[in-house]
Amino acid sequence: MERTKQNAPIGVFDSGFGGLTVVKELMRQLPGEDLVYFGDTARVPYGTKSKESIIRFSVENTEVLLKQNVKMVVVACNSSASYALEVLKNKYDIPIIGVIDPGAKKATQVSRNKRIGVIATSATVNSYSYDKAIKYFDSSVKIFSQACPLFVPLVEEGWAHKRIAVDLAEEYLKGMKKSGVDALILGCTHYPLLKNVLKKVMGKKVYLVDSAKEVAGEVKNVLLKEGLSAKQGQGKYRFLISDRPQHFQIIARKFLGRPIQVELVNDR
Amino acid sequence: MERTKQNAPIGVFDSGFGGLTVVKELMRQLPGEDLVYFGDTARVPYGTKSKESIIRFSVENTEVLLKQNVKMVVVACNSSASYALEVLKNKYDIPIIGVIDPGAKKATQVSRNKRIGVIATSATVNSYSYDKAIKYFDSSVKIFSQACPLFVPLVEEGWAHKRIAVDLAEEYLKGMKKSGVDALILGCTHYPLLKNVLKKVMGKKVYLVDSAKEVAGEVKNVLLKEGLSAKQGQGKYRFLISDRPQHFQIIARKFLGRPIQVELVNDR
Repeated sequence: MERTKQNAPIGVFDSGFGGLTVVKELMRQLPGEDLVYFGDTARVPYGTKSKESIIRFSVENTEVLLKQNVKMVVVACNSSASYALEVLKNKYDIPIIGVIDPGAKKATQVSRNKRIGVIATSATVNSYSYDKAIKYFDSSVKIFSQACPLFVPLVEEGWAHKRIAVDLAEEYLKGMKKSGVDALILGCTHYPLLKNVLKKVMGKKVYLVDSAKEVAGEVKNVLLKEGLSAKQGQGKYRFLISDRPQHFQIIARKFLGRPIQVELVNDR
Repeated sequence: MERTKQNAPIGVFDSGFGGLTVVKELMRQLPGEDLVYFGDTARVPYGTKSKESIIRFSVENTEVLLKQNVKMVVVACNSSASYALEVLKNKYDIPIIGVIDPGAKKATQVSRNKRIGVIATSATVNSYSYDKAIKYFDSSVKIFSQACPLFVPLVEEGWAHKRIAVDLAEEYLKGMKKSGVDALILGCTHYPLLKNVLKKVMGKKVYLVDSAKEVAGEVKNVLLKEGLSAKQGQGKYRFLISDRPQHFQIIARKFLGRPIQVELVNDR
């Protein structure tokens, strides 16, 4: 069968395996789409790196996906979306979708008291990308941000269910709890893996906005609008990473609930 | 003045700023030597990456230092020394010194009950480099190892003095405390920054072996043996890094107790 533009895969990249939260949602919401994931595990984490490095890495990651003839790129890393989204949109012709806007929009929809919290990496917080996006959707909102740089290594260590995860969250969210937010954006694709911990620390009344979930909805909208949706059928999945394929395979299998094949790419 | 081999600088590399613990000791023990430091802050941390990536990064870092005409390379990163030291020694003609052997030797000298603990990154622990080195100096020693992957991001976050550092150390060192070791090797150049925390958790009777301190002594020996010691005078220092020069400058200034100039290098 000839490969049409419609049945080309969707490309997704992240600094490590946090972007699998986006993949999981794409699989659920768009079961007919092929996906190619690239995780830059050789340079993870991004959230503690500079704007310049994050842009350079993001362009290189997009090139990896373009070699796979993707029809769209999902920037499933908030640090990359914060600093590199505009660069990528200007540089490439295919649709490029980031994780920031969909999460910001959802938060403004669910918040009743117009006090919204954002937890993210240092890079994302320092970029003010969520602040700008939230203000775009509702300029009357008051925003409270907190960088949580240790959450990514904590999740990558596989410690999301340990007592120390609660201790760390308590330390980071002291101020956030006092701020009276009723919606909290998980502004890093690793953080949905800490949802139970965050619920425990923030209390049941605070709505946790999972940007992974929201971005999948946005992908669906753009595919329809651009006439790029795949025909029915079961999508195929490929996973490319830049380091430690076996480690990734074990974690991804656990997280996605199915065995996957992982390919090592480090020719950049 | 003509640049002789003797007054060429000593090159030091690490994945981030952990290697500054080695630089501080070199400044103290060898005040007349010029130093060029390279910290690969764009790809930090190394300790969670694969052997293949660590070797590739270490070769690239050595090339950065060789462009500065260094007379010797100190591998001030335990993960690099664990996997790449032999590769570098075979590849280059100048003396290459790693952080593993000097720390292992010291531990066998100070331990009375022949039970030695090693804390390090996952990469270093999985390489068994300390086990092999300790057994070389004293084959009767019993070794207890523990990987502590969150210690590097904790230190890089500047949280070495927070309560959470003690909580994390308690979590990691549960087993180590029961093992009855009387010497504990800090097998990562970031860890001396956690010395107070580790003392508190392990108790005063456990001797903490600071591999940074030991490697500086080894550098001195090799310089003398090879006739490479600099003439008297005050050494000059240069700091090259691959990302976030300002962040590095602030932390390094605090740590070294003097202002420094930092140069960005990312042409690799």
